[in-house]
Amino acid sequence: MPVAEIIAVGTELLTPNKSDTNSLWLTSRLNECGVEVKLKTIVGDDSLRLEEAVRDAFGRSEIVITTGGLGPTEDDITRKTTAEAVDRDLVFHQELLDDLRRKFKKFGYEMPEKNRQQAFLIDGAESLPNPNGSAVGMLFRSNGRILVVLPGPPRELKPMFDEYVWPVVSDMAGGVVVVRKSLRVTGLGESRLDELIAPIYTKYENPATSTLFSKTDIEVQFTATASTADAAKALNEKLAHEVAGVLGAAVFSDDGESMEVVVGRALSEKKLTLAVAESCTGGLVAKRLTDIPGSSDFMVEGFVTYSNDAKTERLGVPKMAIDKHGAVSAEVAEAMAAGARDRAGSDIAVSITGIAGPGGGSREKPVGTVYIGFADRDSCFSRLLNLPGDRDLIRWRSSQAALDLIRRRIMNRDGK
Amino acid sequence: MPVAEIIAVGTELLTPNKSDTNSLWLTSRLNECGVEVKLKTIVGDDSLRLEEAVRDAFGRSEIVITTGGLGPTEDDITRKTTAEAVDRDLVFHQELLDDLRRKFKKFGYEMPEKNRQQAFLIDGAESLPNPNGSAVGMLFRSNGRILVVLPGPPRELKPMFDEYVWPVVSDMAGGVVVVRKSLRVTGLGESRLDELIAPIYTKYENPATSTLFSKTDIEVQFTATASTADAAKALNEKLAHEVAGVLGAAVFSDDGESMEVVVGRALSEKKLTLAVAESCTGGLVAKRLTDIPGSSDFMVEGFVTYSNDAKTERLGVPKMAIDKHGAVSAEVAEAMAAGARDRAGSDIAVSITGIAGPGGGSREKPVGTVYIGFADRDSCFSRLLNLPGDRDLIRWRSSQAALDLIRRRIMNRDGK
Repeated sequence: MPVAEIIAVGTELLTPNKSDTNSLWLTSRLNECGVEVKLKTIVGDDSLRLEEAVRDAFGRSEIVITTGGLGPTEDDITRKTTAEAVDRDLVFHQELLDDLRRKFKKFGYEMPEKNRQQAFLIDGAESLPNPNGSAVGMLFRSNGRILVVLPGPPRELKPMFDEYVWPVVSDMAGGVVVVRKSLRVTGLGESRLDELIAPIYTKYENPATSTLFSKTDIEVQFTATASTADAAKALNEKLAHEVAGVLGAAVFSDDGESMEVVVGRALSEKKLTLAVAESCTGGLVAKRLTDIPGSSDFMVEGFVTYSNDAKTERLGVPKMAIDKHGAVSAEVAEAMAAGARDRAGSDIAVSITGIAGPGGGSREKPVGTVYIGFADRDSCFSRLLNLPGDRDLIRWRSSQAALDLIRRRIMNRDGK
Repeated sequence: MPVAEIIAVGTELLTPNKSDTNSLWLTSRLNECGVEVKLKTIVGDDSLRLEEAVRDAFGRSEIVITTGGLGPTEDDITRKTTAEAVDRDLVFHQELLDDLRRKFKKFGYEMPEKNRQQAFLIDGAESLPNPNGSAVGMLFRSNGRILVVLPGPPRELKPMFDEYVWPVVSDMAGGVVVVRKSLRVTGLGESRLDELIAPIYTKYENPATSTLFSKTDIEVQFTATASTADAAKALNEKLAHEVAGVLGAAVFSDDGESMEVVVGRALSEKKLTLAVAESCTGGLVAKRLTDIPGSSDFMVEGFVTYSNDAKTERLGVPKMAIDKHGAVSAEVAEAMAAGARDRAGSDIAVSITGIAGPGGGSREKPVGTVYIGFADRDSCFSRLLNLPGDRDLIRWRSSQAALDLIRRRIMNRDGK
């Protein structure tokens, strides 16, 4: 299998605030045809270092891709430097210059003289048309290897790669196709998850299975390799189906959708309306739901009842309940949910009251103590969570748990 | 001035989902003593490529820093490979092994035999103690150059760099100190901002001035170079003061604080309480304010009145006003703010109603039409914004404008 290297060009990519992100996208596309990226280099507008990087890379790897530095200014050295690195001249192409002039004319400009350099290609290289910019790319072949020179802006680079480079790379890789699929999971710890699914995925070498834990998400990812995309997809589907079977309601998405999108669609489909009453999350659940275009179909109202008075006056939470049990209690969570549903006139309401920290914790109710309340026509109940993490994380996890509770109830995936 | 290269080691850094972020932090620290990073390499657990990368880098740059690959597993090849790249042996250090054994013992474990390799150093290198992990670092000097070998986890790498590497680098750079300061600005376009401040900053070569525009923020950044941090800071302060003078109330922070932190502190200091009524932002303003620990001091309540009924019932917005002017109108924005203030019993209330899109726009009120309402004891008024961008961006900019309106009013930085 051929291996690839990626070289990102641009002094701005060597500053503290800027990352090279093109290489992540390119890596993903290369991986899809089974090609691994073995090395990445990030170099400034610095011909000496760039020439060395390209020469070394092309000496040891079958696929070398550079991004950036193809513009018309003096900083843009990639065209000239890549030619030097492969010991070729730059050759002028009249048809490219004509194209450039036409492009500029279309937008009502004369082509500036400095853009003329964009009509030069490495001797022997194919030109890669750029429908979204002035910089054409290049594909240079030598001894079964390819050097691909692409512009930096993602909206120029991506379509050029997909149209002109992908088929060549895929061919070099022997037509293998690698496809990924993932299940998004909630409400399970790392070890419990693995305990459940390891007996299944260890039976398979293809697809390969990995579980990714981020602060806010758990994903079970399947990577299948086959000779066609359909065959790879079928391998993933089979294993994903088996794994989803043992995980049951813990899987909230099998196509990468976020929890709020899943919940929003379920509400819309069942023509149910929702109200949200939030204390410690302070509007986060409402914000996440209204991130979705068209959320006015189901979202009636949110109550951010941060103070005790607001809980009482807005939601009718009995002052006595707050005095007796505290604002962070099952009783108050349930009264908030019932009150929100009643006052908003919605089908369903969900509530959150908890201690997000850093202050406000006690021995009985430490930071991370959160109650989620739920009310619909038939029932009103609450759940206690003890969440680890800092303020941001506790708030995020609380909002996720509240959305998940709605999901499970309306999809009937959970008793109570 | 010496130049630096950074080499990140780890196969996981060559996958589509993972970026090397250590190098951004290191670049920032190196820049602070005037050292530029000229090249970054990201290489897998691959001794051949790593050796070549280190050898090349050490051949052309005065400061070479590697991160990662110092653990006790077989994948962790950096210790051995860096030694090979500088043509030295690895030498066993009994005192490092004793230290390691003590560390493990402290946590109640026997040291696994494989950790023994962490007691080896490049011949002639200084060891860099790691208080937060088992992997000691190395600093190897040769012909006025340094090769620094650090572990990958940020919480191990950062204190080690600051304590042991920074003084050496700073010394190599001749004791120059580079200090940054920035002003965060709102409510000005790019060209208007530059028109205002270019006459000032172009008078100075040191500090250098740059303006950074992101989707959500404008920052004017000053970078001063001097022989001491105090002298550099003083240069920044002088220029920042001059620039802030012409920008006036448009500057909301001169120390990197976010808008919500600035507004929250101003409310707390003036002992003012706030209520928020949101339609198209759906809880985003409340969410941002309650991101701040201690926000219960000033935040009384949020109303997410997404439907027209909620606006009428919860906030007392006259149904007639909605029918006559539409839910997105000055009249409704003002009624929302007044209603929120009244019902929450807060000193101040702010409201947002607008069209975030992608649907819902019309010829008279296209997507991006947003009204911000404000009410306090003395006044009730609204502002019309026409915001560019997609749904997320319109919502974000609306929330920023609402927070900024509070800021300007309570800090008396703006007439009306």
